[in-house]
Amino acid sequence: MLDPRDWEAFRAAAHHALDDAVDFLRDVRERPAWREMPESAKERLREALPREPSEFSDVYRTFVEAILPYTGGNIHPRFFGWVQGTGTPSGAIAEMLAATMNANVGGRNHGAVYVERQVIDWSRELFGFPGEATGVLTTGASEANLVGVLVARTRALGSEVRERGLDPQRTHITGYASAATHGCVRRAFEIAGIGSEALRILPTDGRQRIDIAALQERIAADRAAGARPFLIVANAGTVDVGAIDPLDELASIARREGCHLHVDGAFGALAMLSSTLRERLKGIERADSIAFDFHKWAHAPYDVGCVLVRDGEAHRATFASEGPYLTRMTRGLASATPWFTDYVPELSRSFRALKVWFTLKEHGADRIAAAIERNVEQARRLGAAIDADARLELLAPVGLNVVCFRYRPQGLDEAALDAFNDELVIRVQESGIAVVSSTNIGGKRALRACFVNHRTTEDDIRVLLDGIRELGESLARERALG
Amino acid sequence: MLDPRDWEAFRAAAHHALDDAVDFLRDVRERPAWREMPESAKERLREALPREPSEFSDVYRTFVEAILPYTGGNIHPRFFGWVQGTGTPSGAIAEMLAATMNANVGGRNHGAVYVERQVIDWSRELFGFPGEATGVLTTGASEANLVGVLVARTRALGSEVRERGLDPQRTHITGYASAATHGCVRRAFEIAGIGSEALRILPTDGRQRIDIAALQERIAADRAAGARPFLIVANAGTVDVGAIDPLDELASIARREGCHLHVDGAFGALAMLSSTLRERLKGIERADSIAFDFHKWAHAPYDVGCVLVRDGEAHRATFASEGPYLTRMTRGLASATPWFTDYVPELSRSFRALKVWFTLKEHGADRIAAAIERNVEQARRLGAAIDADARLELLAPVGLNVVCFRYRPQGLDEAALDAFNDELVIRVQESGIAVVSSTNIGGKRALRACFVNHRTTEDDIRVLLDGIRELGESLARERALG
Repeated sequence: MLDPRDWEAFRAAAHHALDDAVDFLRDVRERPAWREMPESAKERLREALPREPSEFSDVYRTFVEAILPYTGGNIHPRFFGWVQGTGTPSGAIAEMLAATMNANVGGRNHGAVYVERQVIDWSRELFGFPGEATGVLTTGASEANLVGVLVARTRALGSEVRERGLDPQRTHITGYASAATHGCVRRAFEIAGIGSEALRILPTDGRQRIDIAALQERIAADRAAGARPFLIVANAGTVDVGAIDPLDELASIARREGCHLHVDGAFGALAMLSSTLRERLKGIERADSIAFDFHKWAHAPYDVGCVLVRDGEAHRATFASEGPYLTRMTRGLASATPWFTDYVPELSRSFRALKVWFTLKEHGADRIAAAIERNVEQARRLGAAIDADARLELLAPVGLNVVCFRYRPQGLDEAALDAFNDELVIRVQESGIAVVSSTNIGGKRALRACFVNHRTTEDDIRVLLDGIRELGESLARERALG
Repeated sequence: MLDPRDWEAFRAAAHHALDDAVDFLRDVRERPAWREMPESAKERLREALPREPSEFSDVYRTFVEAILPYTGGNIHPRFFGWVQGTGTPSGAIAEMLAATMNANVGGRNHGAVYVERQVIDWSRELFGFPGEATGVLTTGASEANLVGVLVARTRALGSEVRERGLDPQRTHITGYASAATHGCVRRAFEIAGIGSEALRILPTDGRQRIDIAALQERIAADRAAGARPFLIVANAGTVDVGAIDPLDELASIARREGCHLHVDGAFGALAMLSSTLRERLKGIERADSIAFDFHKWAHAPYDVGCVLVRDGEAHRATFASEGPYLTRMTRGLASATPWFTDYVPELSRSFRALKVWFTLKEHGADRIAAAIERNVEQARRLGAAIDADARLELLAPVGLNVVCFRYRPQGLDEAALDAFNDELVIRVQESGIAVVSSTNIGGKRALRACFVNHRTTEDDIRVLLDGIRELGESLARERALG
């Protein structure tokens, strides 16, 4: 038995851990946004596979001292580093409850299955998808995008592709996406055996949206060369700057060209929750599939994403399989088809739905939408403040919630500016004041501040700006620059 | 802000939830092994997407009343249905703590990364893999097997396959596995675009182990026909009966044939923890990759599996990608390469490692091994008891921890016996006494009892047997059989 020998001692230790967790989140603002895990903590983790048991409370002490302080920063109000959700205190309780039930949600007839179905129903409602559309929770948008690509593959080649595999000499399928598309779409083409060369990368306009004319030309050229265009991947919030492709126009092109339209809305798609932002996503309701994350702008703890597929039959035909151990019965625990394993690569699946259900029930769509709207407004204001500061240069228009800029001391060429700004990003992180990240915009190294954080206040933006100015000045002084 | 407005009220509600969770697990034995979720509970979940917020305690009440009672049964001591782990109370606390930190373990420099590295180190140690071998936690063995197949694909075709895609006219790669192999291996071939026809399914011997002669013949025939044999998938514990393929022999064949040897050890591989069972897995240390689950025989809560890859460079070459938002720095939060996202399909990844780390530290390998050994012994005893009962028929020798059998009233032909035993499985589940499942063994419908449960005692086996006899007799009476 791996249960506690003394339940009451375990209960006390668990309550202690819970108190620490609540304190840790309540006081998050008082700690640095990030601090490096010291060598002493790393050393404390290093050991051979433990053979003997330890008391839970001893293991917990090691956790509290050597692991807990060293978060990735994203729970902090001044984390702007990457597009990462903040999480919530009640999300952590939901995870404990899910692990208490320890459900395997691959299928069968139990409560967790009905919770996931409800979350999928809400998702369909949000995106205006019909009742026949299917959906399933995933680890995140990477897996959701892979599912979208595989379903599109099925629709183009028939489910026989599962047996026969790909054969470009028979049918050479080609997909289309902009240069601003997340690398996981490329990786999905690689995994699916289609090959990334068959994913045509189109240029973007000045606001990082796909170049429609180039897309149409490329589809025509591929068709003329004997290929079969099968998939257009549209972005609802690009990873680097938060750009939204013209979804409605892409839906029309996809329909005309007989292509599947998949929308990667990893973080941006949840702007649908907001009545003021929703119009920017016009056309998303016409997509053939949508991938998005609940662990980003809905702040469910990591990890949980979702994919919706309009053609539920194609979705099922892409994954459904049989096995004697998967026998469906008409009653009992092995009933209640359809099973989620028929819509996703996994069989064993955790009860991801519970944290989403708790989040949407407790906060409601309107409060989550208000947090999203606040982030968009914060990004706009930071962009304006940067524009007004001669030392700082905005490198891309603020489209949604991402601000890309650089510090610009006098007398540096482009290469030196790149190195200067990379060092500045590291110093901001090391200072613990805030976390920003680096990216490339039009060949220039940029500081990137992403607003996907429900804890950020106006004051945090001021602290961020002051910190960047101060650290930038001091770095410039160090290098004897103006 | 999605934080509590009143932290102390939230704290009290969270402590209340924790007490309920501890009670729920402590008293699990007093409840039925499974009960169907009633229509009233399902009805309570159905609602439109909530727009308004609710109190956490109100949401929690709905959870406790309408969801919590309806588990999939696997936490119960008399769950023998499928190969599912039991979970542990401390595993649930570890999940709460992981969600408190809310780490995204795709990469970068923070505590969660070092915990996952430690868990991978322990896994390498367990399987005798060298330090250059790489590993990564996955959602489970399905994903781990997919990674194994993709790495083997890279080793056979070079990493150019990522760009070019599959082209069977250039190189027709073929893989090999027994008929007892889990369907996720077939699904991996489908996803990877190789196609399941290229996975040659070999017959098994009387103990459900791969037929070695048939394997060698098929490899030779494929080679003669111009194919390139690239992968042998061996089982360490088949899903239906727990059979272990001759791993050492398969390792020699794989080496001779230039094939990658991937071991699907979803549950069986962790028998390596046991000094008495380890020898049955001889040869596993020679595998090129191993997939296994921590959520099965190590009882970490769902979901968490692992894949180890001997050729770390091929592993990296299969997944690693670049992106401006993935820029690696020499210091700060964007340092500490290698990053896990370079070894797995996902970028965003939850802190699965923490529950494994807690489990291995608290219980130690020896206590987990003792639970595994007890399960193997329990299966052996159940098999012997079935053998000694004229009403019951053992349908496969008990190789490890799975017992396949049927109830055999007089005067039924095979078709009627199948229907009788399917109904019996359902009645056992509906009675709440225990959960067993159905499978096919040599064309006969079987009751299947899997022992992957640290809560099961000798007494539970007696209750299971008595229940089956009683329900079997009553069903036979109903149908006026002997």
